[in-house]
Amino acid sequence: VSAPLRIALLGAGSVGRAVAERLLTDGEWLADRADGRRLELSAVATRTPARLAGLKVPQGVAIESDPVALVANRPFDVVVELLGGLEPAGEVLRTALDAGTAVVTANKMLLAESGEALEAQARRSRAALRFEAAVAGGTPLLSVIAEDLVAVRIERIRGVINGTTNWILDSMETSGLDLAEAVAAARAAGYAEADPSLDIEGIDAAHKLVILGRLAFGLWIPVAAVRRVATEPPGAGGPGIAGVTRADIEAARAQGQHVRLVAEVRRRGADIEAEVVPRQLLPDDPLAAARGVTNIVAIEGQPVGSVTISGPGAGGPATAAAVIADLVRIARGAGSTWAGLPARDLQPAAAR
Amino acid sequence: VSAPLRIALLGAGSVGRAVAERLLTDGEWLADRADGRRLELSAVATRTPARLAGLKVPQGVAIESDPVALVANRPFDVVVELLGGLEPAGEVLRTALDAGTAVVTANKMLLAESGEALEAQARRSRAALRFEAAVAGGTPLLSVIAEDLVAVRIERIRGVINGTTNWILDSMETSGLDLAEAVAAARAAGYAEADPSLDIEGIDAAHKLVILGRLAFGLWIPVAAVRRVATEPPGAGGPGIAGVTRADIEAARAQGQHVRLVAEVRRRGADIEAEVVPRQLLPDDPLAAARGVTNIVAIEGQPVGSVTISGPGAGGPATAAAVIADLVRIARGAGSTWAGLPARDLQPAAAR
Repeated sequence: VSAPLRIALLGAGSVGRAVAERLLTDGEWLADRADGRRLELSAVATRTPARLAGLKVPQGVAIESDPVALVANRPFDVVVELLGGLEPAGEVLRTALDAGTAVVTANKMLLAESGEALEAQARRSRAALRFEAAVAGGTPLLSVIAEDLVAVRIERIRGVINGTTNWILDSMETSGLDLAEAVAAARAAGYAEADPSLDIEGIDAAHKLVILGRLAFGLWIPVAAVRRVATEPPGAGGPGIAGVTRADIEAARAQGQHVRLVAEVRRRGADIEAEVVPRQLLPDDPLAAARGVTNIVAIEGQPVGSVTISGPGAGGPATAAAVIADLVRIARGAGSTWAGLPARDLQPAAAR
Repeated sequence: VSAPLRIALLGAGSVGRAVAERLLTDGEWLADRADGRRLELSAVATRTPARLAGLKVPQGVAIESDPVALVANRPFDVVVELLGGLEPAGEVLRTALDAGTAVVTANKMLLAESGEALEAQARRSRAALRFEAAVAGGTPLLSVIAEDLVAVRIERIRGVINGTTNWILDSMETSGLDLAEAVAAARAAGYAEADPSLDIEGIDAAHKLVILGRLAFGLWIPVAAVRRVATEPPGAGGPGIAGVTRADIEAARAQGQHVRLVAEVRRRGADIEAEVVPRQLLPDDPLAAARGVTNIVAIEGQPVGSVTISGPGAGGPATAAAVIADLVRIARGAGSTWAGLPARDLQPAAAR
């Protein structure tokens, strides 16, 4: 029998708690899929241990408040980083990767801001850095690009990859609300944060798009180079969906069309262009089918034409399934999410 | 620099020729994605070398007529089997796997009929057996189930996975043809074989469904246990789409619905049920969107709900990209398509 995979779980929000629950209740089933290797929850870092209430956490599992100290002071095989935000997550990842410890993270902001440095560090220390859950939650996407579509020359990726803004646009369309009302409704329904600006202004989608750009085109596009301000309706003048009006939605609906916040990264000659702007979509556009918090991504390239994937873009247990798939892959010896995809020296188009 | 991956290519039909072309013209780009390992076309078995016309096949590449002798007499790292049919493909696979040689195949008929024995043999000799191209052509599907969705308990897979019948149903709907006329049109357009019965009667889709069943539920369902005869309209009484009438299509259209040949494998208690029958689908059913030869598959399970994937179900170059992705995976040390998924002892429901 192989040694168990010792896991440090950092963060016990909705995804972290769901990861802990799967590891604690589903051990045998998961080991069966990891060549018999047990995925062992060794420690949890959280400032609010109450979030683990109801889970039968064995006595041997350390519960600590400081993720940086936990990772610095004890050996683990994998660090699962679900803290979110730039720090202390960044310090934790640098510490772990530097020590050659594998990392699984869902932290799109950190990857978008520091992906290039983190990739370099993971390559130096030969530690696996996996991040399937960072884009499109429980929907398979990143490894599909890196492994299944490895023989495809990708030309463009377009997606609806922010569930909050899609829920808002959807309810503007179906309930005739204006933006402020729909944002309030999203907040009341638990689909938007108290400060929803990362979603509304397209920043969250831009972070995810930077990760998609790395896998599709081999370079980490600077977040600032992702265009987020629409120059024409729908949404003219505002970042993300901030400028979308009820009139924009109604104008689209009068033509049988739908407004969606479309994240798009594409090759144009030697440049890579990236943008997150509201678009009015024809009803037969695959992205137009995105309802509620569903994510839909269309990957276009030669010689496959277009491959479209849709599924849950959020939700603790669904996103936890992506985290656990990364853990199983690491238990079975896999490397980083970019797999064999080389890093390139292409220049992204300047921010406009 | 690692040693090249020596490849024997068996079959030079549309997919085989496209594989040869990629290997011969795209060597550096592919090696870049295979940790620097070259995918080297070492030999081709074909009875009609004219099919390689126009490709610059280097002198060192053996071109032989007998695939069995080729694989028995020379060492390769991977055998790519694109012969189709049960024999001699079966003998070739048994010979290769027995010798511990990796196999990449698109042969859904052989896998459906002999998958259990081939899997046992591959496990014994620790040879990789990969078959991504066997279902849904260039659309990523099998590794998505085996790896990306490894932490998902799959309950049901439903798909439109036979492009020929979908093209036929689509043109019955859009052009008002009856079945015989639409079959003739599909033949004229190159979307149906001279003898289209494998497609029409749902046998090809049943083969693919057996492969999906293995990945979703851990067992090789006997092909005969896949129900193919509809008991009610559309298609009542005939196998596959053989019983679908213009009246069935028109009745569906009058309700704004679409007839599709739906392949479905699902868990019901301790049983696994599988069927390939025409269904009248609501317009918002994700499978209803299948047009022409596009494949669409919806994977349902906990805790993700539903993940839907669509893309090209056929076409030489697109399907070749799936074959080459398997080759890259093997070059990078991957095992079989089922990855860590265990084989189970569940009993399929008897054929009805």
